[in-house]
Amino acid sequence: MPPIPSDALVFPDSNRSFLKPHLPPRDDPKPTSSGLPFTTLTFATSLDSSLALSPGTCTVLSGPQSKVMTHYLRSRHDAILIGVGTAVADNPGLNCRIHGVGGYGSEGLDGQPRPIVIDPSARWDFTEESKIFQLAREGKGRAPYVITGVQTPSVEKQAVLEKHGGKFITLDVSKSDGAHRIDWTVLLQCLLREGLRSVMIEGGGSIINSLLEPAFQSLVDSVIVTIAPTWLGQGGVVVSPKRRTDNTGSPIAASRLTDVKWYPFGEDVVLCGKMRLD
Amino acid sequence: MPPIPSDALVFPDSNRSFLKPHLPPRDDPKPTSSGLPFTTLTFATSLDSSLALSPGTCTVLSGPQSKVMTHYLRSRHDAILIGVGTAVADNPGLNCRIHGVGGYGSEGLDGQPRPIVIDPSARWDFTEESKIFQLAREGKGRAPYVITGVQTPSVEKQAVLEKHGGKFITLDVSKSDGAHRIDWTVLLQCLLREGLRSVMIEGGGSIINSLLEPAFQSLVDSVIVTIAPTWLGQGGVVVSPKRRTDNTGSPIAASRLTDVKWYPFGEDVVLCGKMRLD
Repeated sequence: MPPIPSDALVFPDSNRSFLKPHLPPRDDPKPTSSGLPFTTLTFATSLDSSLALSPGTCTVLSGPQSKVMTHYLRSRHDAILIGVGTAVADNPGLNCRIHGVGGYGSEGLDGQPRPIVIDPSARWDFTEESKIFQLAREGKGRAPYVITGVQTPSVEKQAVLEKHGGKFITLDVSKSDGAHRIDWTVLLQCLLREGLRSVMIEGGGSIINSLLEPAFQSLVDSVIVTIAPTWLGQGGVVVSPKRRTDNTGSPIAASRLTDVKWYPFGEDVVLCGKMRLD
Repeated sequence: MPPIPSDALVFPDSNRSFLKPHLPPRDDPKPTSSGLPFTTLTFATSLDSSLALSPGTCTVLSGPQSKVMTHYLRSRHDAILIGVGTAVADNPGLNCRIHGVGGYGSEGLDGQPRPIVIDPSARWDFTEESKIFQLAREGKGRAPYVITGVQTPSVEKQAVLEKHGGKFITLDVSKSDGAHRIDWTVLLQCLLREGLRSVMIEGGGSIINSLLEPAFQSLVDSVIVTIAPTWLGQGGVVVSPKRRTDNTGSPIAASRLTDVKWYPFGEDVVLCGKMRLD
């Protein structure tokens, strides 16, 4: 057995059971009925629905138990996806530190998700010293696939990615309506071609708000939101989808959940559910 | 026994127990250690912290169980307080329909809270036909005390109020710093002079956001927030206090809760806690 790093996290079985109905099936190699990867939308907010105090900052919101839960969720998905804003702001590791996964108690990279970074204009300015590549070199995580609309990304960045087992994937994910929106169907089809049968979408705000729009809700198989008992205050990075109206122009709720379960978890609460499609 | 109206609500004992630690003590006639009435801040929001889809609309957010809970909470306070915006938008009854309180199974008005409406410029345009006065005439609720900065409010409105047992209270509740803020200490002192030893503050957005500001947090004895598993979308009436910064000018969380309990309640969750004072 390889040594277990001191930052390995333990997530007890007693906490795993409540998440089970909300996760991709463990032994089923098939994608979902849509023919696309199982898609879990997961994030942590304040009571005023903020992910962070301001754009480009990383705010610790949820308690230690919720953080461990996030790592457990990562171990249960083939891929984890973030937007370039989060990659730039957080210098994230995007690995899984649960005791027993690859790099944290077992050989290889079993249980380590593939990081996916949506970076349409290839502006993420990573180097070999970025945390994600350090972890890849230490065998504690996978290098990212960076999905970009740029046809010929920087040769230097390409070299860093490929050296660590990652790559650029050139794919135009903008909706043809020109509204600067991500075409999630095209994106999920791409992940499936890469052999990724489940994906956990972690943020940031514009990625989450985009997926909460009515046009894409049917692509989301599971929603897991952690809420911390704090108000960050006005000016934060807010999760709130675009306003929706009925056919008379009156505002109606943008998105609702169904099959809802609330799990108190330390000081936080974990909300699990499915998008209610109308 | 008087007849019980068909819209009476039953809130079972099994649900009352979790609220007990978060409510004013039943048999203690003393105000709190601050010398002011026991103050409970309570409201229902969407996941994106909206009270309503837009200003001036009344949005049904929480499920039927949470609505009954609100009526139970009303029975446990001497007064319930709203801002004039909510009074104008909702034409609210502001009574308590719990089976067994005055007008809903017993004589008199026991268990019926006194409605308090904060209306600095006396713009609430009520008449005898407003729901709150209909209920007062039927013995199903109390008429409001309207707190206003206007020295001589309309004689007609004054007559409607006094006929039903309500009144105008002329009190300047604006903070002397001219920032259009409510001086909650002055307001709570006024309620105590009126013999009201506990108050439940229900909304709307500007009332709640004002009370969540650091200057007033110490006046809040209990916070009870119901969260519904819905995103209303951008443009709603949002609960989010003013941005707060530390002494270097960096943003910090505006308000936090302590002694937190989460109670799943139907499709909603009920969050109970106290303001954490720093």
